[in-house]
Order: sequence, then structure tokens, then C-alpha cells
Amino acid sequence: MNHLIYGGTIITMQNGKIIKDGAVVIENDVIVDVGKSREMLRKYPRGYERLDAKGKVVIPGLINTHQHAAMSLLRGYADDLPLQEWLEKWIWPIEGHMTANDIYIGALLTAVESILGGTTTLNTMYHYTPNENEAKAFADAGLRGVVGHVCFSWRKKEDINALEDLAKSWHNRADGRIRVSVDPHAPYTVDPEYMKELKELRVELNEKYGLEKAPLIWHVHVAETSDEKEKIRKAFNVEPKGGVMEYLDSLGVLDEHFIAAHCVAVTEGDIAVMKRRGVKVSHNPISNLKLASGVSPVPKMLEQGVTVSLGTDSPCSNNAADMFEVMKTAAILHKGLNKNPTVMAASQVLDMATLGGAKALCWNSEIGSIEVGKKADLAIVNFVKPHLCPIYNEVSHLVYAAKSADVETVIINGRMVMENRRLTTLKIEKIMEMAEKAKTRLLERLKRNVK
Amino acid sequence: MNHLIYGGTIITMQNGKIIKDGAVVIENDVIVDVGKSREMLRKYPRGYERLDAKGKVVIPGLINTHQHAAMSLLRGYADDLPLQEWLEKWIWPIEGHMTANDIYIGALLTAVESILGGTTTLNTMYHYTPNENEAKAFADAGLRGVVGHVCFSWRKKEDINALEDLAKSWHNRADGRIRVSVDPHAPYTVDPEYMKELKELRVELNEKYGLEKAPLIWHVHVAETSDEKEKIRKAFNVEPKGGVMEYLDSLGVLDEHFIAAHCVAVTEGDIAVMKRRGVKVSHNPISNLKLASGVSPVPKMLEQGVTVSLGTDSPCSNNAADMFEVMKTAAILHKGLNKNPTVMAASQVLDMATLGGAKALCWNSEIGSIEVGKKADLAIVNFVKPHLCPIYNEVSHLVYAAKSADVETVIINGRMVMENRRLTTLKIEKIMEMAEKAKTRLLERLKRNVK
Repeated sequence: MNHLIYGGTIITMQNGKIIKDGAVVIENDVIVDVGKSREMLRKYPRGYERLDAKGKVVIPGLINTHQHAAMSLLRGYADDLPLQEWLEKWIWPIEGHMTANDIYIGALLTAVESILGGTTTLNTMYHYTPNENEAKAFADAGLRGVVGHVCFSWRKKEDINALEDLAKSWHNRADGRIRVSVDPHAPYTVDPEYMKELKELRVELNEKYGLEKAPLIWHVHVAETSDEKEKIRKAFNVEPKGGVMEYLDSLGVLDEHFIAAHCVAVTEGDIAVMKRRGVKVSHNPISNLKLASGVSPVPKMLEQGVTVSLGTDSPCSNNAADMFEVMKTAAILHKGLNKNPTVMAASQVLDMATLGGAKALCWNSEIGSIEVGKKADLAIVNFVKPHLCPIYNEVSHLVYAAKSADVETVIINGRMVMENRRLTTLKIEKIMEMAEKAKTRLLERLKRNVK
Repeated sequence: MNHLIYGGTIITMQNGKIIKDGAVVIENDVIVDVGKSREMLRKYPRGYERLDAKGKVVIPGLINTHQHAAMSLLRGYADDLPLQEWLEKWIWPIEGHMTANDIYIGALLTAVESILGGTTTLNTMYHYTPNENEAKAFADAGLRGVVGHVCFSWRKKEDINALEDLAKSWHNRADGRIRVSVDPHAPYTVDPEYMKELKELRVELNEKYGLEKAPLIWHVHVAETSDEKEKIRKAFNVEPKGGVMEYLDSLGVLDEHFIAAHCVAVTEGDIAVMKRRGVKVSHNPISNLKLASGVSPVPKMLEQGVTVSLGTDSPCSNNAADMFEVMKTAAILHKGLNKNPTVMAASQVLDMATLGGAKALCWNSEIGSIEVGKKADLAIVNFVKPHLCPIYNEVSHLVYAAKSADVETVIINGRMVMENRRLTTLKIEKIMEMAEKAKTRLLERLKRNVK
């Protein structure tokens, strides 16, 4: 199906270009033209389904670079608790009872929430076996995503099996919408030798299943809390020199395919290493605040030229999958803490949530901006809303005032997956019912302690 | 009109009481019964319009304790700028061109946005003359509110006129929905003598127009930024001892009718004074972050037993009037900065946005909880949403996951002002059109520099 969206304000994210009364022309999965409405309507008179975007703003689909999608099933299960108690007494025990089907349902629920909020690409990490992963849910929902199996020193063999299967079955599948990553959990749960082995494995899998333009990437939690060096010391009896990122560099595992989630407790030395190696960051301000981890020095990293993208983290530490909330929180938080209202300007934050996200996933040759030749991943936001009135500056409104519920229509890979807030790929009511039932069964299994 | 809402989860905010499959019975403007649905449906078989709240959560209407409602007309007009430049080059010049009609339109727009987001009471402060204020807009919208004229040393005479007119015309009017306050702008713009005079005036106006149960209160910006003592020193050549609140106490102006907005830069001594005098706080985390003012030590104030409520501040420093956003930001911000996930638990934050707000406005004998004898100010929130699924804990969802767009029906003073997201009091489209036109005229007047 070909589409011609016209009459809206197009925020291209290509060198700051904004087109008032603009149009985007889509053939199959690709953007073939972008310009003024009048010109585009004349140039493409027929053969395109026309979408009137008057009063609306068209943006590249938002890119959420850190998720554990299946964990939506645990949204609100436990809050306001000390971190270790939260993990050890609440999250880990119940996660141990999650089935392959629970993972599918949870990931579907997050996919639905994401699309409803204008997010078109998710980078997710969870526990997979050869038979269970989140890729199928994303593929079924029409979403774009990077899915990765999380690795721990204590289950190397299972990890390798799951990773190999995942790469073989899913990398660059579903019309190229799904990619795969290799996800060491964190520097304190993956020993130095295993970390190096996983680097070898990533390179190997990439040579086998990846392409130059569609690489398998790394996705790792790094420096989420300030005690990470201490944890590494205790776990592996090694003495990291400098910060955690410098430690990873000493293992030779950092490169431009490495996306580090959180980076709350990074040092100046770490930031220099990240810049040198081309490491990308996923900043998760809401989760970092809610879990009391602290605040990542994002303005410093940006100043040094590090690519910083945005993520929600899991719906059980956020407790939403809402990138509009993350944009606003990121924009205001660093102003307040740096006592400087000029940092994290709206245009920069919108870039982090779109093109920056694409760069962080090494996917920017195909997504992240509204640009001829790129894949058609778009969100159309209805600006005829009291909270978006009056309009002085669309970019300011997108970051500071727009809400996920204002997203009206979403196109991913040229396919209209949501039209006027109705999903075309899935039945929302059915998924909510499935999730509620899965929760009930999960609590029952936990209570009876059966797997 | 009498109403019987049944089948929902009632979050009463009365000593933490939550009623599953509960009902609220309303006669005219008052809550006359609260209980289990089955019992209430039997007890009140006819004469009540019944509202099925299955799958929904019923909460007391949210109370926004710091606003400048008319400033919605400047939403997104200027962002990401240094504070002084923002004020002096952008906000003040354009505000100088706002007409009485602009103030009315801006306040209407904020009223609409507030109701759509489940806020039933606003505490607002703006520049009024005897012919212009925000009270009429609130009255027309069906909103409840406290409106106050902001006072400065440089316009004492106009202030007194505006205040007297406001109290006479509006205090306890519109079926008791509108109350009036006396609003010295801040300790650095109102000299010590004038501050004392305004205290006398508040007492006088209260004796004349107030009632014991409906007092005129104070509403003042206090310690919004850390340089406030320096500003006082420069402006009035006085040397404040201790913190800014201690300085105000030395003038004898603090009492339990005093609501202090912001309190970012308060000292331990200030907090002790606030506790001793019964001063209430309006915490505005989003505005404080966005304007780079800093973060108020809310957990410390709560620990000391100070009443802390929540506010959005103006839609031009937020840039929304969304109390759900404020609740979530308040809940996560203090956890992150105090490195303690147990502070600002969801139940406490919801209390701050409801009963705490009512206490802060000295209005808790009538509003803030769902309680027999109180005014019927309610919001019904639709929980059948993917981002509120599954449900473990409604209070957690209200603070961490629910959004203003989930509010479906709003009742204020027993009147259904919104039903299934349709306002019954105003035409949203017309108000948006008025606001857009007002903006255009305002920019034109600014450009030509005509008033």
C-alpha cells in the first residue's frame, strides 16, 4: 500500500528541517518524497491512499532503546521498596514462574502500549530459551525491534544455545523489522572471560547472520548504580581501574555496536572511553529515579559528543512504556539539577528520542528521521487539543506538553499499524484480558510454588 | 440532580479506605453515602441517576495548589532560556499586552485542561483589576478554585482596589465554589511594611467576607530560587536572619492560612518555623526543574509534619496543567535524589494531590476525600487501558501509570462537568479557537507595541 500524508507540520529530524503544510509520500515500506503539500499532491495525483494531517504534526516514530517488554505483566506488582528487597523478595521469585506464554503476552502488551504512544522501535532484553522470546510478539504487533537474550555467568551453556537460536531464527526477519542483539546482563554478573567470549560470539553471529547494514549489536546494563565497581570486585575478585566503562574497555569489549543502558555512575574517564570507542548510551531517567539509582550525567556526555538515546526501562520499574513522559522528564530533570535551563533543549531531546535512538541501535541508515530512502516509521500527533493550545512552537509542545494519547496514527515499515487510535494488527481488549489472566495464573503458581 | 456511582473501586482517601465494587451516593452537591455497591443499590433504589463504574476507579478530584491559569496563552512561547532572559525579554513584555479578555480566555483554557485531567480545584494567582480576574472563567467552567490578586510594592494602591473588589465580588460565590486569597508576590517584591499591611488586610477582608469555614487565605511564592535572601537584601536593604521563611516569621505574617509555593531553598530553620506556624506548602516539581530552580526538600518537610500539597505552576513553565504528571514526577524525583526508593510512596503522593491539597487551601472540611458530608468533587478514571494492565494495586497505578486522558467523568460540587470526556459546561473547540485567536492578537500588539 502506498500513502500520501499531507497538510500537516512535518518534523523531519533531518538537520532540523520542519515543513509547515507538508507532505510525506510512502511507497510500500519506504519514504520516497517529502515536501510541501501542494507540490506533493500535484506530483503524485493517484495511486496513494491520502491521509489529511491538517492540525496534526508528523514525526519519526519514537525509538525506545531500553526495555524488558515481557515485564509489563509485573507493572505495579511491587513499588516503593528498597532495591534489594524489591529484586530478591518480589521480582526474581515471580519471574521464576513466568512461562514462555507469559513472555509472549507481556511483550504483546508492551508492544500495544508502545504503538499507542507513537513508539515504533523497541530495544528489549529478556530471558529467552530456544522456544521463548519477545520477537514473535513484536512481529505480530507490526512493531520494529531489537531483541536480545540476557546472559549471566551462571548459565553460559543455556545462554549460548538461546543466543544462537535467536540470531538464526530472528535476525533481520519479519521484513527486516526484527534484529537481534547479544546482551551480557551487566559487568558484575558476567565474568571477564565470559564477557570476552560473548564479544567473540557477537562477531561470529554477526558474520553468519548479520549484514553490514544490519548488524547484531550489544545491549548491556552499565553503571546503573554507584556500587557497581564494588560488586565487580566481590563477584570476580578483580580490581577495576578507573570507572566501570574503563574496566570494560580493559577487556577489549567496547565498540560502536555497544549500547550501554543507564550510565548513572560514570566517571569523566568513562565518558572519554565511551567517546573514543563510539559506545552509545540509553538514558532511562524515570526508571533511574523510581529505583533510586540516581541521575546520569547526560549533559556532560552530550557535550563530549557521546550519542545518548532515551529509554523507558521495563514497565515494572517505570511503570509505563511512554516515551513522551521520558522526553519531558529528561528535558526538565537535567535543567533542574544543573541549575541551567538551557541544557537539554526541546529540539535536542526530540533528537535523542528519534535519530539518536536510531544511531544508538546502529539502525540510522533506515530509521530515525523522515527522509527520502528511509523506512516509513511515522507517528501522526493530533495537535487540536486544549493542552497543546495555543501553538507557538511544535517541537516545544512535543517535548513539554504532548502526551502519548495525542498520537493518532502510526505507520511502521510502511504499514498503518494504528489508525485513529485503532490498532490494525491486534485486538487491544483481547490482549488486556490475556494479560489479566496471565497475572492471575502467575500469582497462583507463585503461591503454590509450582513452575 | 442526585447521582449513584456504583461498581467501581472507590479510593476514598479517608484513612486509606478503599472499597472494591463500591458506590458513592450524591444528593445535590453533597456525598450522602459511601459503601459496597450491593448495599447502596438496595438502600437507594430510585431517584438517583446511576453511573456504572465497572472497570473504573473513583477518586476525589485532584487539587492543584499553584497556578497562574491565564498564562496558558503563553504555553510554549519561550522555553530553554536563562531565567532572567526568559522573564525580562519574553514573559513580562508580552504579559504587559494581555487584556481582560485574554485573562478570561487563558483561564478558561486552563480550566478545560484541568477538568479533562481530573483536577477539580485550582489555586490561581494573577494580575487583576476590578474588572478582570480568573474567577468568572472558573465559575463558567464549573470548576472549584481559589483566585488571588498578586501584589507588588510598586502598585500598592491598585492592589488594594483589586483585592477589595475581588473579595467582595467573588469570595464564597458560585455556590461556594470560588474563594479568594490575598497574594503578595514574593518576599523580595513586597517590602516588609507592605507585607504586614497585607496581613492586616487579609484579616479585615476575612472578617468582612469570609466565614470560619470558608476563610480567605494567603498565597505567596517563597524560596523558589536560592538567591532569594540576596534579592531581599538588595531590594529593601534589610538583612534577613536565617532563611526566607524565618524572615517572613520575623514580620509576623505566617499562620495556618498561609500557603507557600515552591519552598525550594528552605533551611532546616525555615522548616521548623513552617511546622510551628502551620504554614502549608505547594510543591511544583515540574516547574522547578524546567526553570532550573532546583528541588524542594519535600521528604524533610513531610518528616517534620508540614502539610505539602502539589501544584503544576503556570502552563508556561510546565507546560501543562496535568496533576497526574506532577504526581509521578514528585514520587520518582525524591526517590532518585535521596537514593531512597521508599520515600514518597504512591499512597502518600496521592494524599498530597487530594486531601493534602484541601488542607493546604484550608478547604478540607468540604473537599479532598470521598466522605459522607463532603462536597461531591470526584474523578472517575477508566482503568481498562493497556498501560493500566494488569492491575495489582490501583493506588500505584494512579501515581505511576495513569494519565490525565484516562479520566472519563468528573463531578464538581455534585454537577457532572465532564461525562465520557465530553464537557457539559463549555465547548472545547470554541475555547481552543478563542485561545489561538487571542494569541495571534497578542503577538500583533506586542510587535506594534500597542496596549
